[in-house]
Amino acid sequence: MLGQDADGCCGRLAAAPLDEDRAADLAKVFKALGDPVRLRLLSMIASRDGGEVCVCELTPAFELSQPTISHHLKLLRQAGLVDCERRGTWVYYWVLPAALERLAAVLKSPQAAGATA
Amino acid sequence: MLGQDADGCCGRLAAAPLDEDRAADLAKVFKALGDPVRLRLLSMIASRDGGEVCVCELTPAFELSQPTISHHLKLLRQAGLVDCERRGTWVYYWVLPAALERLAAVLKSPQAAGATA
Repeated sequence: MLGQDADGCCGRLAAAPLDEDRAADLAKVFKALGDPVRLRLLSMIASRDGGEVCVCELTPAFELSQPTISHHLKLLRQAGLVDCERRGTWVYYWVLPAALERLAAVLKSPQAAGATA
Repeated sequence: MLGQDADGCCGRLAAAPLDEDRAADLAKVFKALGDPVRLRLLSMIASRDGGEVCVCELTPAFELSQPTISHHLKLLRQAGLVDCERRGTWVYYWVLPAALERLAAVLKSPQAAGATA
């Protein structure tokens, strides 16, 4: 969803007007980030030394039910920002750093992109 | 809204778990980006040589009414991503590149941030 364009461009917002398909794909990912609980979950996972977090450690940080937390995590996973694996009783989550990097690249200004191109 | 924290950290998602206030502020900005029309508007403005675009040039690209386009532009402005000025009949928009850069910095992975720190 966040892959490079055919021409190798990362699809920066400042490079050229986005076409409808690309805008729709990107909007889904930004929408996944457009919620405070999901942002906090993502940062809890992303900032974890060792790289993965048990869902049993995420839930107590919120005054929300386990199914609600699981729903938010599902949206992050559907956006391609995290992945997970069940091991026994619990599900473990980790971020997909390349997805965050590609999203960061999309936001780069013309000046900043020119400096690193 | 997207300024640096007191400790000079840019508030990267991967640096530490976001607190509630910071997550709420960031979520507003990501939510503004979580819509395909707003992303296309932002990229049309950001990719414009010369840096500013008349609203009269934005509207014809969409099958949407002028008030709807204006509403989307207002949300981008409230998120601190663009600014505008009325000159005579028309309103002209430009991006605030520093806001996009700060948002990109928030998404940087631990590895990438370490490489440029």
